[in-house]
Formats: sequence, structure tokens, C-alpha cells
Amino acid sequence: MPSSVDMKAREQALNVFWSRFKLLIESILRGEEPTLEIPKRTLSNTIYDEARKLLLLGPQKLTRKLFDAHEARKFMQTILMAKIIYEALLNNEYPTIRDLYYRGKHTIVFRDHKGRIKEENTWDEQKESDSVIRDLEVFLGVLREEMLILSKEKGKVVGNMRIRSGDDIIDLSKMGHGAYAIEPTPDLIEFIDVDAEYVLVIEKDAVFQQLHRIGFWKKHRAILITSAGQPDRATRRFVRRLNEELKLPVYILTDADPYGWYIYSVFKIGSITLSYESERLATPTARFIGVSMTDIYGDSEKKKKPYLTDRERRHYIIKAKPADIKRAKELMNYKWFQTKQWIKEINIFLNKKSKLEIEALASKGLRFLSDKYIPEKIETKDWIE
Amino acid sequence: MPSSVDMKAREQALNVFWSRFKLLIESILRGEEPTLEIPKRTLSNTIYDEARKLLLLGPQKLTRKLFDAHEARKFMQTILMAKIIYEALLNNEYPTIRDLYYRGKHTIVFRDHKGRIKEENTWDEQKESDSVIRDLEVFLGVLREEMLILSKEKGKVVGNMRIRSGDDIIDLSKMGHGAYAIEPTPDLIEFIDVDAEYVLVIEKDAVFQQLHRIGFWKKHRAILITSAGQPDRATRRFVRRLNEELKLPVYILTDADPYGWYIYSVFKIGSITLSYESERLATPTARFIGVSMTDIYGDSEKKKKPYLTDRERRHYIIKAKPADIKRAKELMNYKWFQTKQWIKEINIFLNKKSKLEIEALASKGLRFLSDKYIPEKIETKDWIE
Repeated sequence: MPSSVDMKAREQALNVFWSRFKLLIESILRGEEPTLEIPKRTLSNTIYDEARKLLLLGPQKLTRKLFDAHEARKFMQTILMAKIIYEALLNNEYPTIRDLYYRGKHTIVFRDHKGRIKEENTWDEQKESDSVIRDLEVFLGVLREEMLILSKEKGKVVGNMRIRSGDDIIDLSKMGHGAYAIEPTPDLIEFIDVDAEYVLVIEKDAVFQQLHRIGFWKKHRAILITSAGQPDRATRRFVRRLNEELKLPVYILTDADPYGWYIYSVFKIGSITLSYESERLATPTARFIGVSMTDIYGDSEKKKKPYLTDRERRHYIIKAKPADIKRAKELMNYKWFQTKQWIKEINIFLNKKSKLEIEALASKGLRFLSDKYIPEKIETKDWIE
Repeated sequence: MPSSVDMKAREQALNVFWSRFKLLIESILRGEEPTLEIPKRTLSNTIYDEARKLLLLGPQKLTRKLFDAHEARKFMQTILMAKIIYEALLNNEYPTIRDLYYRGKHTIVFRDHKGRIKEENTWDEQKESDSVIRDLEVFLGVLREEMLILSKEKGKVVGNMRIRSGDDIIDLSKMGHGAYAIEPTPDLIEFIDVDAEYVLVIEKDAVFQQLHRIGFWKKHRAILITSAGQPDRATRRFVRRLNEELKLPVYILTDADPYGWYIYSVFKIGSITLSYESERLATPTARFIGVSMTDIYGDSEKKKKPYLTDRERRHYIIKAKPADIKRAKELMNYKWFQTKQWIKEINIFLNKKSKLEIEALASKGLRFLSDKYIPEKIETKDWIE
């Protein structure tokens, strides 16, 4: 039996499908040309909202018409995907986006205007079906998770909190040496009670394992989360909900390199290609706790001493690769990296051409990381907004 | 406070370090040349044990001597790493292999025999420090997990069983829509009670999510595990323990391609580069449940009908890439793939040059996968040993 939470979610999604597509059906019955108006997911319609500090979709819309030779195929794909998802919702299915691709993949045989028999595939690559799923998300204003579409999920959490997921109550402080693997539909989680002061998100799973094992979250009253690299949607949504609903500050700990900065920026601002999700998935108040370039080299302006000695720098620092340099220069073009502190960080990086892994700090002793570095950075507010 | 399980594990590992390195110290005190005898981890010393159906290290050993110009560096590295791990054990640390690399990385300044000052790095790349950790594992007969060395961990599990991990008892049947993320030291897990008939290991996390969500493990009394791709050590050890200690049969479900076959073979036989772990990590009785080539095309010899219709094959099958073909031919050279059934499978693959993803079956309806395909394959013993 599916959980009651899932049943409710299905009903809600089905209702949205109905109310939106009813309009299309009605207009067709009135003899109008079948047309869909969908918010544009293009770069030019992706706007960085300075006030809300979020990447958002702008106001532009595209009109997808069935009787337009350029749009007919896309129109067909959109309706086909809507049908497949609608049926999956009705049938208590839990498809993945890969499933949806396969479910819709077939060859349409038709006669063209000269009577010749022709063949056309509904779609050839998953890129096409994924794109239509995204169109449906923005068209319906419903995230795919709310349509019970599942996906691979890497995020893990431990901490002093209890949640309800499905029909179970789970105590995230009783996970032993393991952790709780976050579900792909984090909106269906109910927070029951939480006793924590902040959320610490760690890029690297192995560092998460270490801090968990040493009891960091107990001692410092933290909710400990790992994204295991580039965060997936569910981990981002889970973090956002902890921040928004429980008012917990969020700190993000990554390697000191442009890849780590980008992970932070995806948590905070959203991703450029999927800006329509930011409103639900991003955490605009998330703070970059480190490892920062000034942690490595100090900051004479602020009289900040580096956390590494000369000798440690010599042994731990990794030479930046050309791809890192290129990436750093790209980041500099993003408005949300054009703050005083980030410009300083990126300039130190470009100047020193050096990066550092978080493990280099752990190698100074796990207690250095857990009892000195992280608490001190938070206490002295030595983070980047 | 570290858990009592961890304290005990530390003590055991420290004892092994002592008893093994005491011999070295004693021999040095007797005035003998410092020498270590370490089982060879070379391909030529990796043997497929036909009777036990395992990849194992052979009897060859190497002798690492301090006063041999070719071996001095390796000798130094081995002792350095032993010292670092020993200290980490003493200090209640939980290093990762990346940490250990950083902890030992420094420059040794010395005078050569002509009195010139020279410099040499302990190691330059993690490859070198990792190799020495492996040498210590085989030298001491202790896996790195038993030395409380942690690592990234991808494996997840749900099912009707309770375990003790650290100081907690965890009910793996009460994980809601999420799952239990297996700890990096699965030997420290205690199985408390289990009510299941078999273990189903799924290559793909997203398919695991689907089967979990639909309640597969409740209905079919299974322990459901995902390796999320190529399995890590902890997931392999966890599966092995379920098989060995609880006598549960293990079925492995992967894509129908050489990559999936290799995942199966790592679970079953061990990996070629890390054959010394197989004795603890491999599950020689693991069964490949699918997706097999005969599931796709049928088997006239056994009068087995295919699970796919002509139409489905046309839409779902993916053309094999040259890399897939190459990999399949390599697998054919491995003794453990030289069984009648595997030769048939690989030949169909090479003949049809086709592969299939497990999601293609899920797209026939999740209930097809969960209520027909998997149960039927198990019931009719339609697996490959």
C-alpha cells in the first residue's frame, strides 16, 4: 500500500493537471487552434533577482502551437509527456525521468500531405524528453517531485531531529555510524521536532562520515548533511526547508576551489540551467563557511591569521589546473560572485593559482576541524554571504 | 564519546600493529637489516580459486629492505604510513585515505653519501600512499575499515531487519521513503533480527527508490540494497555478511551490459586489483538475476520466452558502443565468465551488439518489474550463478 502522504500528493498533482489541461481542451472544443503558453527556460529569460538573491525565470513566455510546422513536434511531445505522467499518477506508479523517456519512445507512422507514408520518432534522446518534463514543470507550476517522479538521491543527514516520512517516524539522532538517506520527494517529509542551532552542509561524503563519527553534531548541536558532490534537487530542497521552516542558519563547507564555490552557489542561488526551481530549492541566506582563500593565506586587511603554517601550505596546496582558472574567471562574471569578499577570494585564487582540499585541514587532526576551525569560523562570523 | 564498538575495534587493530611490528623492532635490535615480508599484490600473484570461486592472493611475497637502494623509499613509506595509522588509532581519529596522504606528505631533507644536501618527498601522489595502505592491509591481515579508516559510502538498505550500529539500534523497516545509508565500517554492525527470504542488490539507485516506494521488500520479504553503481567496499562487505551469517541468498539486478556484468562480478568474485579483499568482501554464491540477454531475446534451447515484445525491443534497446564490445571481449577472458550460461550471454551480446537498461523494464509498468519479472525469475530459478 502506498503511504497516505503519497496518495494525497497524487491527488494534488492530478488536480493541477486537470485544471490546466481542461483549459486547452475547452479551447479546442471551441474550435481554436491547440496552443500552450509556457514560461521560457532560456538563458535570456533567466534573471538574477538582486533583492531576493535568487536566479529566477523572467516574464517571457513561448507559445507552442500544434498547427505550426516548427512547433508541432514539440507540441506533440509536451502532450505525450503530460499523458504519460498523468497516467502514472493515476496508476500509483513512481516513474523516473529515464522511465518516462522509455515510456514515450515510439515511432509514429503517418501520411503526409501528399499521401506518402512517413515515420517519425516521438523522441530520440532523453535530452528531448527531459526538456519536455521541465516545460511541464513550469507550465503547471509543479515540480517533478510533486508528480511522484523519483530519481537517484545522494544526500544524507544526521542530527538531533525527528521527521515523518511515509508512514514512519524516523529519529535522525539514532542512525548509529550510518546516516539517513534523504528521500527523492523531500516536500513530503514532515519535521516533527528539531533541537539544533544550525545546519552544516558538507560537500564531501568522507568528511561527513568523519565529523559524524566523532560526534560533531551532538557536541555542536548541528544538523549534518552531505551532498556527496554537486547537490541533487532533493538535498537542496531539504536544506531549504530546514532554513525556511525551522529558521536554521545554513553553513556550507567545500574544498577551496571553483568547483566548491559553484556547489555553494547552487545551494544558495540556484543553477543557471534550472532557474525555475530556485524559488523552491535555493537557500538565499546560505553562508560559505570555507575553506576560503583567506583561511589559507590570511587577510591582512582584516588582520586575520591563516589557519595553515608556511610548511602546511607548502605540503597541502595543490596547483590549480587551467580548467580551474577558466572556471574561476567564469564565476567572476556572475553577479552573485561580484561582492567585495568573493572578488577578494577569486583574486587570491587567480594570483596564487592554488587550491586546497578540505581533507588537508582534517589531516591537521580531525579535532582541529571539528573543535577549532568550524566552531571558530561560525563564532567569529568569518563566513561569506 | 566514541562508541564502545569503535573503542574495541581500535584496541584490536592496535594489538595487531604491536604484534607485527614488534618482530621488526626485535630483529633491528638484534642488529639485522630492517626487512618487511609482504604478500605480493601483483596480477601474477592473483589467482582465481575455482573451488572457492574467489579471486585470491597467491603465495608470493616480496621482501622490502631498508638498505636496498631500490626499496629504501618504499620501506620508508610503509613505516611512515604505519606510524600515521597507529597514531590515528591511539588518538581516536577517523582518517580517510585522502587524509593519510596529506598527513604523511612532507619533504625529507638529507645529506647524501657525498655530503650534499638533498630533498625528497615522502610521496607525491595519493596513488603512492594508497598503495602503501594496501601493503599494510595485507601485511597485517587487517582491512583498512578495521583500522577505523573511513571513506565515501554510497550503499543504502531497507528491509525487515534491525541492526545495532554504534550505540544505536536501527529498524531498517522504518525508514519512510528514505533509506539507511550503510556505514563505512560494516564489520562493526550487529545483526539483531532479520525476517527476510533473500537479498536483492540493485545497481541503480533510482530503481531502488522505485521498488522501495512501491513496497517491494514488504511484499516479497526481501532486503533491498543499492550499490549506486560500482559497489564500494562497505556495500560489498555488508552484502557478504548478510549472505554468510544469515544464510540469505543474494540476487543482483543490473543493466544488461558489460558494465552491469562487471558489477555483478565484483560482488561475487572480487575485483582484480584488490584481490586480497575478496576473502572478506566477495559473495561467491551471489546470483545474477538480470537483466540477461535471454530475458531480452528468449532462449530457444530452454524454450524461454523473451520478456520484451518485438516492438519493445525496437524501442528500448540501445546499440552497444565499441567500448562495450571491447569490455565484453575482455570479460570473456576471465575464468569466472567461462561458464556455459555466461558464454551464451556474451555471445548474444556480441552478436546483437545491443544492450538494455533496467529502466526499460520499469517503463513497462513498475508492477511488471516488481510483481512479475523479479519474482518469476527467482521462482523459476532463471538466474546465472
